[in-house]
Amino acid sequence: MDLITTTLNIEKYVLGLQQMPKSLEVVLSPALLSEVDIVGKNVVVIDILRATSTICTALHHGALGVKPVTHAEEAALLKDIGYITAAERNGEKLPGFDMGNSPFECMDGKVKDKYIALTTTNGTKCIEMTDGAANVLSGSFLNISSLANWLIDSPNDIILFCAGWKDKVNMEDTLFAGALALKLKSFVEIDCDSAQMAMQIYRNNSDRIIDFLKDSSHYKRLSRLHHEEDMIYCFQEDIMDCVPVLKNGILVAY
Amino acid sequence: MDLITTTLNIEKYVLGLQQMPKSLEVVLSPALLSEVDIVGKNVVVIDILRATSTICTALHHGALGVKPVTHAEEAALLKDIGYITAAERNGEKLPGFDMGNSPFECMDGKVKDKYIALTTTNGTKCIEMTDGAANVLSGSFLNISSLANWLIDSPNDIILFCAGWKDKVNMEDTLFAGALALKLKSFVEIDCDSAQMAMQIYRNNSDRIIDFLKDSSHYKRLSRLHHEEDMIYCFQEDIMDCVPVLKNGILVAY
Repeated sequence: MDLITTTLNIEKYVLGLQQMPKSLEVVLSPALLSEVDIVGKNVVVIDILRATSTICTALHHGALGVKPVTHAEEAALLKDIGYITAAERNGEKLPGFDMGNSPFECMDGKVKDKYIALTTTNGTKCIEMTDGAANVLSGSFLNISSLANWLIDSPNDIILFCAGWKDKVNMEDTLFAGALALKLKSFVEIDCDSAQMAMQIYRNNSDRIIDFLKDSSHYKRLSRLHHEEDMIYCFQEDIMDCVPVLKNGILVAY
Repeated sequence: MDLITTTLNIEKYVLGLQQMPKSLEVVLSPALLSEVDIVGKNVVVIDILRATSTICTALHHGALGVKPVTHAEEAALLKDIGYITAAERNGEKLPGFDMGNSPFECMDGKVKDKYIALTTTNGTKCIEMTDGAANVLSGSFLNISSLANWLIDSPNDIILFCAGWKDKVNMEDTLFAGALALKLKSFVEIDCDSAQMAMQIYRNNSDRIIDFLKDSSHYKRLSRLHHEEDMIYCFQEDIMDCVPVLKNGILVAY
């Protein structure tokens, strides 16, 4: 977050213009979501490698919206009404679809002024689990400060919801939850051990994220599939400023 | 682990006397246990504050065995056949039982040569979730090196199973999983992001555990109930050497 915005936000709080404290919790896996109450809260879905980074990139490159769908068949059906279809399973593009799940596929102009139907192994399923939330947002390093400011400006409690890998906790989503929690720390109350852990892990590794990730399970998996370029891309901070928010089942740029 | 044991274990490996690599995974909450396969593995149940620390202490102070039970009523029934009964919920001793869940209650001679029926908010429930494991052990800082050596000497894969707090991930169990994983690191293959996180969190805080824990949810909860002494006790390393192993539903000293 830039200094001016931070100062403005602190001033809002001091002047009593912003309600405090709102709470922040981190959920490290979809299997843990039922342990928290998401009703009326702002839920940030986090699937850094690569769904939520790709969603942000698509909107930045002019896509009108991204519709997350759980089943590939559902995405395929939407092709008939003009959607670009994007489908990934276990790190690979499914045959017969326009795109897989790489952010670079959104950069050649084909998503501009189009809607995308996206289905992935982890991230899109999580978006469908957020019924009852006040707002559902898609998180990525690419737009982390804009996202943080959006959350600071909203009065709602915050849940940072990591997609993980097939219900297992993973490193890259935890790192992002930690990075975002650190940006929000002065504006929220954090009584959540997962958030404390995530913040510490990010703080200790922020200057060497890619090296640190080389021991992680999904980095190894994507490396075997030659997606190193995607991974380096997804860990860049603040290269775009759109905030993807779910409206009527479609993520659109705020 | 002392230097001689470590050297002996490395020699066993180099000489091919010990099968390698066995795997190690960390499960950060009971809600995540279904994501791993525990069949035929050594499962270490971890509820540092305080069930598994108390179990180790009871056996060290001469208890013949500790039977973990899920329901308080079940513990109460065992009183009739001579068991000492111990019951805790939400950090407090339940009325009508011989003990709560404090390790200090095991030090006045009353558990010597007795069996204990123990029910707690988190830890004992987890022990009952481990059907199919080759061995179920109870983990604590108090006996960490003996436990590590036991696991190194066994050929089975290892699951470090954190009890958490009511299915939420917690700090103290994660810290212990990290400490134990670091002791086992040279003897196992670790392809598990939760284990990498736990090791890093322990490594960064091992010289200031109590200070670090002051931000954690369960430390605050137990502090409100005046259990600081218990917490300081539970973070002492290697003050006893028994290894609690489940035999016919009862944890006994190996």
